[in-house]
Amino acid sequence: MIEKSVKTDEPTKDISYEEAIELVHTKVDHTLTKAPIIIRKYTNHLVSSKSKFIRAKSLIICAEDKQGNIHPNAITLAAALEILHLATLVHDDVIDNADLRRGSITLQKKYGKKTAVICGDYLLCASLKMAASISNKEDYLSINFPDYMSKVCIGELTQHINNGNLDISMYQYFKIISGKTAALFDAAFYAGAYFSGSNEKELIQYKKLGYILGIIFQLTDDCLDFETTETVAMKSVQSDYEQGVITLPLIHALHEIAGFKDKAIRSELSRSEINDAVSRSGGLFFTRRMVQSYYSKALHLISYLDITENKKEKLISVLNQVARLSLTNF
Amino acid sequence: MIEKSVKTDEPTKDISYEEAIELVHTKVDHTLTKAPIIIRKYTNHLVSSKSKFIRAKSLIICAEDKQGNIHPNAITLAAALEILHLATLVHDDVIDNADLRRGSITLQKKYGKKTAVICGDYLLCASLKMAASISNKEDYLSINFPDYMSKVCIGELTQHINNGNLDISMYQYFKIISGKTAALFDAAFYAGAYFSGSNEKELIQYKKLGYILGIIFQLTDDCLDFETTETVAMKSVQSDYEQGVITLPLIHALHEIAGFKDKAIRSELSRSEINDAVSRSGGLFFTRRMVQSYYSKALHLISYLDITENKKEKLISVLNQVARLSLTNF
Repeated sequence: MIEKSVKTDEPTKDISYEEAIELVHTKVDHTLTKAPIIIRKYTNHLVSSKSKFIRAKSLIICAEDKQGNIHPNAITLAAALEILHLATLVHDDVIDNADLRRGSITLQKKYGKKTAVICGDYLLCASLKMAASISNKEDYLSINFPDYMSKVCIGELTQHINNGNLDISMYQYFKIISGKTAALFDAAFYAGAYFSGSNEKELIQYKKLGYILGIIFQLTDDCLDFETTETVAMKSVQSDYEQGVITLPLIHALHEIAGFKDKAIRSELSRSEINDAVSRSGGLFFTRRMVQSYYSKALHLISYLDITENKKEKLISVLNQVARLSLTNF
Repeated sequence: MIEKSVKTDEPTKDISYEEAIELVHTKVDHTLTKAPIIIRKYTNHLVSSKSKFIRAKSLIICAEDKQGNIHPNAITLAAALEILHLATLVHDDVIDNADLRRGSITLQKKYGKKTAVICGDYLLCASLKMAASISNKEDYLSINFPDYMSKVCIGELTQHINNGNLDISMYQYFKIISGKTAALFDAAFYAGAYFSGSNEKELIQYKKLGYILGIIFQLTDDCLDFETTETVAMKSVQSDYEQGVITLPLIHALHEIAGFKDKAIRSELSRSEINDAVSRSGGLFFTRRMVQSYYSKALHLISYLDITENKKEKLISVLNQVARLSLTNF
């Protein structure tokens, strides 16, 4: 059980879910629009990109206590987590040479890779500075953002090393997405639950749930690269393979279709050959079935949490959002 | 006055200067050589580069208490600061497209920019994780590494924006070096003094001293780019101008020689034209005189500190090292 300690200069009253989300948006916007003048042009550019704030929402939902209130420190951490996520995206776009993100031209495309490297560093620092500003210092250190962030780095590096590796195993693939995507969902759920007054055992359940949601998010994202249009995804699609990122639907095809891997190793395949192989092998069906299995596990975990029905509904709502089964904003 | 709180699982005895420096080396080496397997090849590459550990040494010297002992937390922070510095160098080399650093081929040159961006991120996280592991959590938060790091980012960005800007003012130049170099010296002196049991007023003096040493370090470095050979500097020399980095000796020449700036704006100058102009205008003499002025300020600050003669000697020794007046390892 976490002791709540609030400094006298902070609001002492707890906050509702809707107010909390609003405050997170304000905090993130403030960090981006009130950055030091020299960097503001670049951070302002990031405001325009449409974030769904899924990690922040997850943290806030998990932070709700039995009375439906949210501790002010959870808001600070949710904003810090979104900025941390944004920092990883800015560096990601440098690494992937991406042009489009969240419906906007990327920082690296508009202002160059050098600027984007520095801006990513700046956002990383801004995030950790914000996280360290929470009133109960012990809480900040228990949550350990830098540790989660280093997991993201390891995931990114593993992906980069396996760029274009058609021999990549499912095990390696899951190691990559556990780091690059699931780590920050895990952080969101853990940090949120920490402020809801959860005990040690419950905290582990929340962490698991966060991890699963992260995996569902990434598997679904990997399917969307094959299925959707740029307008819907608000980022480049039909592009993972072209960037050397070998995802689960394609890994399945490479395993299932005799001779396909050899052909792919000999010469680069066209997008239609890739799509055809994924379709013939049932790669998307296989990946969706895996999503379904994780989805069931998540529902099971939620059902066993000792929380209000309202909080359960919110958790299911965010689960549906990461699985793209719902477009509601709950 | 800082209350010293040491966890029971840490060595409870204080440590001498020599032991402390040895422990910092061990900690940094351990972080680099025992990193997760996937990243170890790259972090191992960094072990081979010859660091002078000036920031860590500064922190340790400042951390000496009246009995000449050093708190174990100061060792952790000194190692974390060196790793933080290393992270900035790795990203710096990406931005500057540098081939050589500390006598070794750079990570970005050997393994590519993408890998170097991720490795820099990883080291940044590893540093902050290590800093957060100190036994007295309040101390960690008071020192606020992410804040210093964001100053470095702002300095780097300002330098990048002013790349090739021959109209750069001395004011802008000092803003750049205050961030990119002086911020981490300031951090080293502040964090060290914090553990020595210094009071608020003394802490401010140490911070000033750290800042001044950082400025001296950078001004001297800028002179060396004109004066020394690659073998001595263990990095590329005669290269700042070619990379668009306009430093003080050249700024002086641009101001002093009539028509020189116009000529430089019209067409890129050769290295011999640059060297000649810097020499004719006395740009190096001007910069060295400024170093001398900061050097005197630093000596003055040291003389007024209420510390042992031995600690004063060590501080002067590190001052001489940053001004390249001494090659002793004190």
